[in-house]
Amino acid sequence: MDDATLPSWRDTPTRRAIEAFVTGVATGPDAVPAEERVAVFDNDGTLWTEKPMPTQLHYVVERWREVALADPSLADTQPYRAAVTGDLAWLGAAVEKHYAGDDSDLGTIIAALVGLTDGLDVEQYAAAVSAFFRTARHPVLHRPYTELVYQPMVELLRYLERHGFTCYIVSGGERDFLRPLTQSIYGIPPERVVGSALGLTYDEATGSVRYSPALAFFDDGPEKPVRIWSRIGRRPLLAAGNSNGDMPMLDHARRGPRRGLALLIHHDDHDRDDAPYDAGADKALAAARERGYTVVSVRDDWASVFPAPS
Amino acid sequence: MDDATLPSWRDTPTRRAIEAFVTGVATGPDAVPAEERVAVFDNDGTLWTEKPMPTQLHYVVERWREVALADPSLADTQPYRAAVTGDLAWLGAAVEKHYAGDDSDLGTIIAALVGLTDGLDVEQYAAAVSAFFRTARHPVLHRPYTELVYQPMVELLRYLERHGFTCYIVSGGERDFLRPLTQSIYGIPPERVVGSALGLTYDEATGSVRYSPALAFFDDGPEKPVRIWSRIGRRPLLAAGNSNGDMPMLDHARRGPRRGLALLIHHDDHDRDDAPYDAGADKALAAARERGYTVVSVRDDWASVFPAPS
Repeated sequence: MDDATLPSWRDTPTRRAIEAFVTGVATGPDAVPAEERVAVFDNDGTLWTEKPMPTQLHYVVERWREVALADPSLADTQPYRAAVTGDLAWLGAAVEKHYAGDDSDLGTIIAALVGLTDGLDVEQYAAAVSAFFRTARHPVLHRPYTELVYQPMVELLRYLERHGFTCYIVSGGERDFLRPLTQSIYGIPPERVVGSALGLTYDEATGSVRYSPALAFFDDGPEKPVRIWSRIGRRPLLAAGNSNGDMPMLDHARRGPRRGLALLIHHDDHDRDDAPYDAGADKALAAARERGYTVVSVRDDWASVFPAPS
Repeated sequence: MDDATLPSWRDTPTRRAIEAFVTGVATGPDAVPAEERVAVFDNDGTLWTEKPMPTQLHYVVERWREVALADPSLADTQPYRAAVTGDLAWLGAAVEKHYAGDDSDLGTIIAALVGLTDGLDVEQYAAAVSAFFRTARHPVLHRPYTELVYQPMVELLRYLERHGFTCYIVSGGERDFLRPLTQSIYGIPPERVVGSALGLTYDEATGSVRYSPALAFFDDGPEKPVRIWSRIGRRPLLAAGNSNGDMPMLDHARRGPRRGLALLIHHDDHDRDDAPYDAGADKALAAARERGYTVVSVRDDWASVFPAPS
């Protein structure tokens, strides 16, 4: 293989396994028709950084802060207090309570979350998200989020497309938060962004589609293969993720009639990645060998992590 | 315009309005970027015939008949009795009761409907649907359903694509019933088929996606613009339908920032169409002038209706 095709990948067994799979799907006696070459990618932690917090949480906390500034009576109630003080530990504790079976604080978060878009039409929300990305900076790396994509994965998207694949994002994050920027940062258009969704309603008076104050579904774990079928109607040949919640999607691709390739990004680099971690990926890493996941080591397999500063 | 581009359309003001709109979107000072040229098409009654009954009803009644033959104790209960006797009036009456506020019989129908796919994986259902279409014949016209597409509309799909449009089906009918055949009869791949949906669940044991015994949503009326946004993330520039349930989709396209084109197929041909009708389209036809729908008369605007027999 030509080094130039995946320049940010080191010449390791991982890269060679990817190249062998893609070449086998695209050419030769076992080639798959181009229209069936579908690849799906988790977003947070797979295509861009998700530490110290998912980008959407940064956006949401900023909006909550604005709400509390406009209505100071809210500043002593959660989640606005966390947003105003910048003490986000309460948010993390609410998620932990959820996993312990107590959804009281998570319910408070979701109500405040869906309140931010309630009544907006989809074009208004897209404009608000686009405005955020024009100025927001990563709190640790101090670069625009739009520059904190994983360069080797962007190269992999293009490499797959050159071999006839169609690539989709399948994010646990919220779909319409990503759609305004995926074309410019990943080369993936909005119709190929799958993700968690806010409720929608048609507004007869204006002919617009607006958000309702509800979550429609949370696109994680077993919901990912369901959303993939709903949106695409094909089983992927390649899936890439980085967490336990990606396991059903990885297994779904892996266990198709044509054995797919399942890539599991392992954030094991203590120098170049923003925050090495196994938390939330422990089950996937432990099961990788048995389930046939190809583990991608940030430390060993990637020659560079982020694009060079522009 | 070159007659050859839409050979099954007569040279009428309707055809000239379509050509003027498409040319204006694709070229000249007001052209729209190609990626935003999205067109959406209802299916039953817009892209193919829906009379005397929607094709999917033919499929479902055949399956119910098989169920009743395998378990004769069911043959005296509805909807199996209707399927076995061929007396489908009970089904029509159930729908009328629904509109009168009584969902008891419709509930029976839906339970029997979702029972047909309950537990099947998506590939198994696709195979069953494909087998049906290999042998099924239209009960009046005695041709395969796959030949009973509206030839002028198929030409319009190709004409739009030549002008950079991406075309989607947005059907009130069930999505996965259509997906196996839309590529061959319309040139539209499964990922661009939007429609009503059965519930789906991920089967951890096999890595497959299976149907659950429930309807996820009914893609008609105000749900159509909602599903369009969910699936595509863009507002269509052109929408085509033939019934009252298409009005929100037509209005959504028509009332965008770039005034879209809304086509309303009017089944007014008493000789060549299988069954001329206004029922179910009365509100749309009455509102056409006020809402700016371009009415397509089967009788006056189409030089031919179906493809020549093969």
